[in-house]
Formats: sequence, structure tokens, C-alpha cells
Amino acid sequence: MTVMLAPLLHVDSSADREASVSRQLGRLFADEWRGGGGTVRYRDVSAEPVPPLREAYARLGRRVERKGVLSLDDIAALVEDADEQREWDLTLPLITEVREARAVLLGVPMYNFGVPATFKAWIDRISFPGAFVDPVTGRKLLADKDFVVVNARGGGYGPGAPREKFEFQESYLRAYLSDKGADRVTFVSQEFTRVGDVPALDGLEDLAAASRATARSRVLELARAIR
Amino acid sequence: MTVMLAPLLHVDSSADREASVSRQLGRLFADEWRGGGGTVRYRDVSAEPVPPLREAYARLGRRVERKGVLSLDDIAALVEDADEQREWDLTLPLITEVREARAVLLGVPMYNFGVPATFKAWIDRISFPGAFVDPVTGRKLLADKDFVVVNARGGGYGPGAPREKFEFQESYLRAYLSDKGADRVTFVSQEFTRVGDVPALDGLEDLAAASRATARSRVLELARAIR
Repeated sequence: MTVMLAPLLHVDSSADREASVSRQLGRLFADEWRGGGGTVRYRDVSAEPVPPLREAYARLGRRVERKGVLSLDDIAALVEDADEQREWDLTLPLITEVREARAVLLGVPMYNFGVPATFKAWIDRISFPGAFVDPVTGRKLLADKDFVVVNARGGGYGPGAPREKFEFQESYLRAYLSDKGADRVTFVSQEFTRVGDVPALDGLEDLAAASRATARSRVLELARAIR
Repeated sequence: MTVMLAPLLHVDSSADREASVSRQLGRLFADEWRGGGGTVRYRDVSAEPVPPLREAYARLGRRVERKGVLSLDDIAALVEDADEQREWDLTLPLITEVREARAVLLGVPMYNFGVPATFKAWIDRISFPGAFVDPVTGRKLLADKDFVVVNARGGGYGPGAPREKFEFQESYLRAYLSDKGADRVTFVSQEFTRVGDVPALDGLEDLAAASRATARSRVLELARAIR
């Protein structure tokens, strides 16, 4: 039997609770992962918002960046005052969680065509200069991890959809994660989740149901394949 | 002499203070606006973060959306409990500020290829269903306003740049604002602002200086043209 040291990091970000589709899809994945003996570290950036960056974060970041890629210990040694210490104390645990995970599951609804502000707050904080680069070898540390992003979208934004040009959620995360060196990234989107709420989407019930069924089966397949 | 009733709404979002380029550009615009006799309403979403959406916001939003476009007073009348009231109390002043402005100046740095989380928190909150639509005529209320977005970006992300595909800041805001009906939107970007901090940008000092000079003169021109 394999001993799993590195857990799945599961990040949720929807402001909704029970009604949230990204939470439902993420729970499905995480339950399947646990069923296979995997452990899960859970972070809810909506229930416990990541504090916005303050000036000291930018100041420390610039000082670090001028020196090139540093180890997390070397970054801590560059802290110069209490404000910077506070910012680093808020940041280091979030970076460490990602670095210690074997796989990362991101639950991300679409808010106003992009990722929610609460999710961006997590991204802005973990993206400290060099946080995911090995300072000795230059290797990108996210390359070894599986990322699964469960997206929920009120309408249809896929390739060819009339609203495709308003899609800044999956495309954004794809670019961000690729820049960070993550090359094992899978997106599962459930669309038309606002059918029933938004009058303009009336009549799309079948599309919504099909998207839901496909997303749920893909999530289960992925959890089995990755764990 | 013209009496100006509707002010310029100036929103800043950089975590940086003095070193922030978007703050510098915005200040230039606002000072020129004031110099012409205009008034300015200022909101700093970094210094005073917009609280993240909570579940009651989504619940109230869904209830409103099912009824179509409502007036702000009619929305207030649909509030059902203290949590919803809290969310609406946090939201209404932000929406009102935008509706009362004749022009809106947005100071937006690029953080991790997109808008800062603090700025997205403002967007997520003001984007309440129907907030910028006239419930009687269906007219989009932002169509009558001038928007100026002053973007700052550490490197080069313009058309043809090797990093163009990582540009989710201006393109995002362009899409978001166009969907809301704002059709008088101008972007001014100052690029290569991280030259001097990021070793990979060494040698681009001339490009950075040219971008700065162009951005500053465009900002002044715009302030004179719009005020």
C-alpha cells in the first residue's frame, strides 16, 4: 500500500454555499480522492478571505526580485520591518500549502467574466517572486503537480459560443498556470448554471443538464486517474 | 461658467503608494480635471478594501434577477434579512457613486496578468444585476459616461509583444465595460514599469522612459478633452 504524504490541496472560492456548482464539483472530486485513501487539505477563500496585499508586500517583493530567485528561508531573512513581517506571515503558509500538495483542486465560479475577487486575492498573494521556482536548479516546482480546475459559468462561454469573447476565467487561469510552469492542468467546466435564475437563459434546461452530467462524470474520472 | 454637478469618480487600486505608476497617472489626470474647475470623488480600494461578496449578496442578486431589471429602491424593498441588508448597504453606495459620476477614472496596475484582487472586489460588488440599466427604458446608464483607465504594467504586453497572450488586464476591462454598455472608454497604458527591479528587463530603460512620457502626455490631453 502506498503511503501518501502529499495531500490534495482543495481551494474553494464561491460566495455561494449549497447552491454553488463549483463547490459541488469540487466536493465530488475530493470525496472520490478520499475514497481512494488520499488526504485533503481544504481552504475556503470565500469563508476566510485572503487579506489584500499591502504596500509592504510590494516592497519586500521588489527587494527579493532584485536578488533573483531565493529560497523561502532567504526571503524571510530579507524582511526589514513589522509591516513586511506581517505580509510575509500572511503569505508563507499559502505558498507552503501549494508547494506541499501533490495535486491542487481549484473551485472557481465565473464572476463578471473573470475569477472571483476572493480567488484573485489568493493568486495575488501566492505569486510572490520566485515562490514556485527551485533557487538552486531553476526548476519550476508546479511542473510536478496535477492541477484540476472546476469552473462554473452561468451561461455558455465555450469555443464558438456568442459570448466566447467574454471568457476571462479559464483562459486567464490557463495562462497564469502555464507561466508558473504548471503543465499538468485540466479544466472541467459546468455551464448554463444560471438557467432558472436568468430569464434570458429560459429554454436552455437541456443544455444545462447535459453540461452538468458531463462535468460530474469527468470530475470522477479525473479523481480516479490522478489519485 | 458651467456648473459641474456630476463629479469625476477616481478609483485607485494599487497596493503601492508613492511607487505606484497607476496612482501617478491617475493623480495627473485628476489634478488637471480639478484645475479646470471639476470636482473629484476619490475611492482607494487598496487602502479601504471593498469587502468580499457573501452568500446573502448572491441570494439577493438571484431574487432580483428573476424579476428582471428593477430600480435601486425596488431592490432595497426585496431585502429579506439582516445579512442581505448588510450586503446591500455595502453595495448601494458604490453603485450610486458610479451612477452619479459624469466620468470615471480607473487606476489599475497589472497583477499577475490581470486586475488586482482589490479592484476585482469593487467590480464584483458594483455588478449587481441591473444596477446600471434604466428599469423603465432599458437604457444602459454607463453609455453616457466617459471612462478612462490608466493601466500600469511591469513589462510589455501590447499587440505583437511576446507576452501579449498574457494580457488579461486591459482586454478584460474592455470586455467588461462594453458588456455594461460603456462605449466611451479610453485606455492609457504605461509599460515596462518594473525596469530596474526585474533583472530580465535590464536594458529596456529607453522603452520604459518613452512609454512613461507618452502615457503622461495622453493623460493630460484626455483630462482636457473630457472635462
